[in-house]
Amino acid sequence: MVKQDFTITTYEVRDIRFPTSQHLDGSDAMNKDPDYSAAYVIFYTDDKQVEGHGMTFTCGRGTEVCCSAIDALAGKFINKKLSELIVDMRATHRICTGDSQLRWIGPEKGAIHLATAAVINAIWDLWAKAEGKPLWKLVVDLTPEQFVQAIDFRYITDAITPEEAIELLKQNEAGKAAREAEMREKGYPAYTTSAGWLGYSDDKVRRLCREAKEQGFTHFKQKVGGDKASDIRRAQLIREEIGDEGVLMMDANQVWDVKEAITWMEDLLQFKPHFIEEPTSPDDVLGHAAIRKALYPRTRVATGEHIQNRIIFKQLFQAEAIDFCQIDSCRVAGVNEILSILLMARKFNIPVVPHAGGVGLCEYVQHLSLIDYICVSATTEGRILEFVDHLHEHFLDPVVMKNGKYMTPLAPGYSIQMKRESIEDYTFPEGKVHKELAASK
Amino acid sequence: MVKQDFTITTYEVRDIRFPTSQHLDGSDAMNKDPDYSAAYVIFYTDDKQVEGHGMTFTCGRGTEVCCSAIDALAGKFINKKLSELIVDMRATHRICTGDSQLRWIGPEKGAIHLATAAVINAIWDLWAKAEGKPLWKLVVDLTPEQFVQAIDFRYITDAITPEEAIELLKQNEAGKAAREAEMREKGYPAYTTSAGWLGYSDDKVRRLCREAKEQGFTHFKQKVGGDKASDIRRAQLIREEIGDEGVLMMDANQVWDVKEAITWMEDLLQFKPHFIEEPTSPDDVLGHAAIRKALYPRTRVATGEHIQNRIIFKQLFQAEAIDFCQIDSCRVAGVNEILSILLMARKFNIPVVPHAGGVGLCEYVQHLSLIDYICVSATTEGRILEFVDHLHEHFLDPVVMKNGKYMTPLAPGYSIQMKRESIEDYTFPEGKVHKELAASK
Repeated sequence: MVKQDFTITTYEVRDIRFPTSQHLDGSDAMNKDPDYSAAYVIFYTDDKQVEGHGMTFTCGRGTEVCCSAIDALAGKFINKKLSELIVDMRATHRICTGDSQLRWIGPEKGAIHLATAAVINAIWDLWAKAEGKPLWKLVVDLTPEQFVQAIDFRYITDAITPEEAIELLKQNEAGKAAREAEMREKGYPAYTTSAGWLGYSDDKVRRLCREAKEQGFTHFKQKVGGDKASDIRRAQLIREEIGDEGVLMMDANQVWDVKEAITWMEDLLQFKPHFIEEPTSPDDVLGHAAIRKALYPRTRVATGEHIQNRIIFKQLFQAEAIDFCQIDSCRVAGVNEILSILLMARKFNIPVVPHAGGVGLCEYVQHLSLIDYICVSATTEGRILEFVDHLHEHFLDPVVMKNGKYMTPLAPGYSIQMKRESIEDYTFPEGKVHKELAASK
Repeated sequence: MVKQDFTITTYEVRDIRFPTSQHLDGSDAMNKDPDYSAAYVIFYTDDKQVEGHGMTFTCGRGTEVCCSAIDALAGKFINKKLSELIVDMRATHRICTGDSQLRWIGPEKGAIHLATAAVINAIWDLWAKAEGKPLWKLVVDLTPEQFVQAIDFRYITDAITPEEAIELLKQNEAGKAAREAEMREKGYPAYTTSAGWLGYSDDKVRRLCREAKEQGFTHFKQKVGGDKASDIRRAQLIREEIGDEGVLMMDANQVWDVKEAITWMEDLLQFKPHFIEEPTSPDDVLGHAAIRKALYPRTRVATGEHIQNRIIFKQLFQAEAIDFCQIDSCRVAGVNEILSILLMARKFNIPVVPHAGGVGLCEYVQHLSLIDYICVSATTEGRILEFVDHLHEHFLDPVVMKNGKYMTPLAPGYSIQMKRESIEDYTFPEGKVHKELAASK
């Protein structure tokens, strides 16, 4: 069943924090001072050469809570053989989400679900390494039946059934090889969020816009929702830099109530925003639907990085609440649940535009967009992958960008393995970097 | 502002677990083997006599995750004076929910929100003790303006504004004293879940039904969703015991998908269930609306114990998805958020029927139903408070039941303070009870 088999012998959990708040990288109206962090897990095996790595992205404080949740889950995999786990990936996913006691603190949401992503992604990383393939290739090589067998359809059968899902995948079988070849040659188109953080000065925003244009980017994202006059001033200067042909996206990071989102955006429509991202609470399906109804087609609605699971995504699709589906590789329970969301997005004809940035998210999502293109949606129309140029240097196989595109990753695994030195130095609070920071205060 | 003022000096967090899974108390189709547990916090003050106690209910494994989350929050209250905290309870609530880094692992959901409930409820407990009042009395004595000042209206202003909320409360001012006197005399009506657990034998169910009837209960709850033939058999025998005049409620604990819920309930309608509780995922607003549309008025839909926050409740009301609002005292962020849900339920004319059981939930919710009756809904019509007769012996001021009613609590505080001996004996894993259990295995 699997090229090489391993038994998981032990695991290690690390609380890894990068002190990014010192430079206001990643600052927006809601997340004012994130320290990009990772609740990180390593599964060790009886083959000393091969480890499964996974992480969930966090913002500093609270990483320890996710680490505690990983501890509650990872032990369940000790002494399991990889071949046992992958023979029924739906059951493997449910080892985490179906624990009759742990589900009380979710179910399938918040800290325990973020932790599940780390654990499940580490199992997929291990599987991909065992096959000697990058994760995306492992998945696109699955038969439609195997692909669907990885998905927990609980609570989504009113939107999509396993039979429908298999049918959708079969429709795309013919063109798969050609699309894979195209991706290997050209890569997946990206946009940049690096320029538009709220904490940056106007001059820095202008400079970053120019640099991004020179690098081949055509889509740019601006953070909004702090102060309206400042939003307008900044939208104007970004438009000046990127011209009418540049695509300007706006992101409010959940700061508005429903009516406020509508009136605030009315004043920003003059700058022709492609979409407004996270206009309100990620839990508010009906609120997103109301905002979209008021603003469409003058602008469009996007959300996803805080959408807790497939059940909320299902409703966003059913309620016609969003125009873009911004899946997050850590927010939902890893690869399995992502596959279910890709399929629903395909059925409802909503483009998948993954969330990235932070630490590790770019490394993860490049695989997900490749899976979407090669086997699920079979198109890149309206689809573009977020890129933020932070912290890639800590990974063994970091993303490679060329002319505003993600170059298709080729190394075996899920691209998420951090360098050992980075793991040690940034472990909180005892790593070298944090000791030095504490001493300097 | 406050009768006695204190400064919070330190706090203690405990992981307290009762090994209830040994007897299948609390077993249902989803929660097969809960060990009723509490992530427990104590705020100590400069007055050695007065402590603020709070807890969040959990099911065993995962309690340590909530304890880690409490640790992340409770430290924020050290060196704060009670008078500073209560002068703006909305701001105090936001100390927990608005942390710019911690909110990533929610926001306002899952482990961090359960932890917030423990912390915020401990602050209310401290305040009530400082005033020498039971929690319900502290709240009903607030002016409408003070009551509303405790609420975070973020994300719910499209359903209710502060001005509307004040208006609703003012409408009820006149009758408050009479309703309070009535409650002090007669208590609040209850129903029992003790009889219907899935893990009990038919004979035990019959016996418990008879005992409950003799104790004055008129409403009975049956767990369903495990095996349909067994659900039918049990519904029949409970009906035999409670007669046509008894009210039979059914609870599926989230086991069904949307269409399955409808078809399964079609076969149980012959037993005239008052409502079906948790027919599907608590995250599925549109799913509940579809189920209600199919079954109403042959039966009604109830949910709440797993509804993560006021934003999902808002949508359940807006979508006409439920007939009964089953708030949980720990699932949402404590008293403040509960007040917002009571007000929305009042505005949408949905009766509040709190969830209780587990450990500590009965002690908590009796206060909430009193607040609902005395100042918010001003009626008990269609309202009834869950009661489960487990684990009350561990509390200093346990609930008192008479003739199927909760007797109104009179001791200062939120009734949630556990006996010191229980805290020590049941602390996991080092308490006496757990050491003995481990040794006996």
